[in-house]
Amino acid sequence: MASHDTTAFLDDLAGLLGKRGLLRDPDAMARYISDWAGDRLGMPLAVARPASTEEVAEVVTLCRRHGIRMVPQGGHTGLVAGALPEADGGELVISLERLNRIREIDPVNFTMSVDAGCVLDTVKQAAAEHDCDFPLSLGAQGSCQIGGNIATNAGGLNVLRHGMMRQLVLGLEVVLPDGRIWNGLHALHKDNRGYALDQLLLGSEGTLGIVTGAVLRLCPRPEQSRTALLGLPSVEAVVALYGLARRGCSDLLTAFELIPRRCIELAMEATPSLRDPMDAAHPWYVLMEVDATGPVDLDAMVEQLVERGLEGGLILDGVLAASEAQAQQLWQFRESMLEGQRRRGEHLRTDISVPISAIPAFVEAAGRAVTAASPHAEIIAYGHVGDGNLHFNVLPPAEMAEADKRDHLHDLEERIFAVLDDFDGSISAEHGIGRTKQAAYLARLSPVEHELAEGIKALFDPEGLMNPGRILPPR
Amino acid sequence: MASHDTTAFLDDLAGLLGKRGLLRDPDAMARYISDWAGDRLGMPLAVARPASTEEVAEVVTLCRRHGIRMVPQGGHTGLVAGALPEADGGELVISLERLNRIREIDPVNFTMSVDAGCVLDTVKQAAAEHDCDFPLSLGAQGSCQIGGNIATNAGGLNVLRHGMMRQLVLGLEVVLPDGRIWNGLHALHKDNRGYALDQLLLGSEGTLGIVTGAVLRLCPRPEQSRTALLGLPSVEAVVALYGLARRGCSDLLTAFELIPRRCIELAMEATPSLRDPMDAAHPWYVLMEVDATGPVDLDAMVEQLVERGLEGGLILDGVLAASEAQAQQLWQFRESMLEGQRRRGEHLRTDISVPISAIPAFVEAAGRAVTAASPHAEIIAYGHVGDGNLHFNVLPPAEMAEADKRDHLHDLEERIFAVLDDFDGSISAEHGIGRTKQAAYLARLSPVEHELAEGIKALFDPEGLMNPGRILPPR
Repeated sequence: MASHDTTAFLDDLAGLLGKRGLLRDPDAMARYISDWAGDRLGMPLAVARPASTEEVAEVVTLCRRHGIRMVPQGGHTGLVAGALPEADGGELVISLERLNRIREIDPVNFTMSVDAGCVLDTVKQAAAEHDCDFPLSLGAQGSCQIGGNIATNAGGLNVLRHGMMRQLVLGLEVVLPDGRIWNGLHALHKDNRGYALDQLLLGSEGTLGIVTGAVLRLCPRPEQSRTALLGLPSVEAVVALYGLARRGCSDLLTAFELIPRRCIELAMEATPSLRDPMDAAHPWYVLMEVDATGPVDLDAMVEQLVERGLEGGLILDGVLAASEAQAQQLWQFRESMLEGQRRRGEHLRTDISVPISAIPAFVEAAGRAVTAASPHAEIIAYGHVGDGNLHFNVLPPAEMAEADKRDHLHDLEERIFAVLDDFDGSISAEHGIGRTKQAAYLARLSPVEHELAEGIKALFDPEGLMNPGRILPPR
Repeated sequence: MASHDTTAFLDDLAGLLGKRGLLRDPDAMARYISDWAGDRLGMPLAVARPASTEEVAEVVTLCRRHGIRMVPQGGHTGLVAGALPEADGGELVISLERLNRIREIDPVNFTMSVDAGCVLDTVKQAAAEHDCDFPLSLGAQGSCQIGGNIATNAGGLNVLRHGMMRQLVLGLEVVLPDGRIWNGLHALHKDNRGYALDQLLLGSEGTLGIVTGAVLRLCPRPEQSRTALLGLPSVEAVVALYGLARRGCSDLLTAFELIPRRCIELAMEATPSLRDPMDAAHPWYVLMEVDATGPVDLDAMVEQLVERGLEGGLILDGVLAASEAQAQQLWQFRESMLEGQRRRGEHLRTDISVPISAIPAFVEAAGRAVTAASPHAEIIAYGHVGDGNLHFNVLPPAEMAEADKRDHLHDLEERIFAVLDDFDGSISAEHGIGRTKQAAYLARLSPVEHELAEGIKALFDPEGLMNPGRILPPR
């Protein structure tokens, strides 16, 4: 496969990284080349596993000298094939997994300095040991890495209170596409010096450089929390209840998840130990959580909200977790419903956002568009109400032949996006563009924005070797 | 003054903007050409006052055609001469003041769309009418404009809870230096499409384009608040109390201001109706505020904190405001101390940040450095503890001749910054770089960061006509 040139490159790389630092055997590379959902496969030239920022810089310099395309990779849990190598065998995967040191924790400054390859759960645990919390919360937190969270500006469950990764990073260390190290590792909560280069790197999906370290912002560790699962009659009621909750729970509302009845059923299918949470089935559910430090009466807060919701006919029934174990059980519905969905085989996953006020109208209009084109398709719309972020997913008709599903789902996606355009929504609220969302992204990009994006890419990566073809097409 | 070319330009401009839209009379231009502190004066070619985004675009296009340098200007309350025209008569001030429309408020989405020329107080009032709050809070809020807040990534009093302007903007409309309008006015809480161009514009101080509109993020309007002024023995105690407050007040702590005894005295000098707030004088004070919506017992929260602070010897004495009027009186100290400082004539104003944990050591080391060089100078260090942001200011020795003060203060500034470098601090936490902080900024800029900053400027503004010489030197 490797040409004369790549052989020389790989020899240099092996000399640089040693045996532990370079993988070329297909079996050893397996876990770096299939994406999370398992439906896409790539084949890289090799997998480099540098062990320090300096080694990352040396690998990048070597790639540049040989004209080798690079794909930075964290925990490889992305959903848009941004860190998945092409199948042409020409890209070098650069895994950050060996840069996994917690560098420093300063609980007085509420900051933590980490290597990019630290797993999110590890970071959260390290914070907890200092009575702090790193509030980013994702399904993939057991394997996703901080560097990937930064590169994709990760979101998740607690964004309505704590913001996305963009709000949780104070400083960055980055290896630029020319191999130079940019050290912006400041532990400062306020810093208005010049252009926000760090903000540009955040969410750039590895196309402008490789994040090797970061200073993260911490919060006090919550001392108490309350979790409730509520049954509601309509999406309108969900949005109205969100307004009450946002106002009635001060800034202590941590999660407010929309779950349709179908997802409760999918969860119970996937996890048979789960029982239907209320006596009756309700068309929509909300899984909400509040947490606090200090003397706040969260019971009173939740009770008042539920009372108002019941009075106003917004809430039909509900379950308040009486213990941490019960709270985890309620969250189990949120996790198991994803597994239930996965078991249904190939389906359409979207990640859209609209203004919160537009959620009901969007759900209705997009639902109509899907049903008109595919009467037996099954819509599963869940998401983060406080962010206007819906995963408006579709299971194809049960009777459809496997071979027809992909095209059919793609057609439905385009119909959903067309509805989304009427609401000035985003085709990617939190997952990013990568490769799978690129066509839909480019189709909606204004010429001026496209030109600026190309200019930024060319400024950082004039040779186009750093994660090429992600976000923007390769040059 | 105007050459043949500028005459043709001014004629074109007059034709475009009409009488109300163009000022050339020195008297009429007066308020656009002296900066807030009154110690710097500029002289522009003229002041353009376009009334719409399209007019801004036409003015920019005209400037570009004639090679005229542009200085965008909001409320002109900046502190680093970023919006002050040069004295050479060659720059066109483009004031956004006539773009002052609240475009739309969506209280369900917690967003507001505004023209860039809206005054911050107007925006806050408009939000309040919909039971919402726009939480940016600055001394200059009665005259500063949203566009300027965006261009400078404004900070202020409530950053520890609500973040800087960067965290409060969801979408931007910008006239680029080539006259094209970039419409990024999305009202989406989550949007991960491509590079964060809006984040790059935020804090770019008018050097990459002119912000003409924005979508702002709102919060629920607080239903209750508590304000306390506390006396403390040391800066160490202040930082320790901040840790207790951050943990004990959940995410409801809105302000935590450090005030030295000298500032209480300056406030009483400036506002004779103010009485010494406690029986004894204390070396340091903290002015803190918590606020909430919903059923939270703020009295219990503050009482518990004060009790713990007293027990631990962190708090010596304190005043809790029993009414809104009393709270305003306590805040009066914070405002009047600035006036008291101003009355002392020329003095050094800094705007630095360090990690919160480093505040005590920095205050001591910087104090030593100042006193060693100028034993009779008076140090006034106040600021926002939760942001690690200090205004470490110096009044020159009373006996010093006026003519010597500027150089002396500049020397002291360099000594303070040298200490700051040991703490990896920022020479500009919230005010920006503009022109007055440029030398100190460039002296500390790494080559790689400098090159990227120049590249970004060249990408957006290849002709170097948009607020040239601010942040970076003119080309």
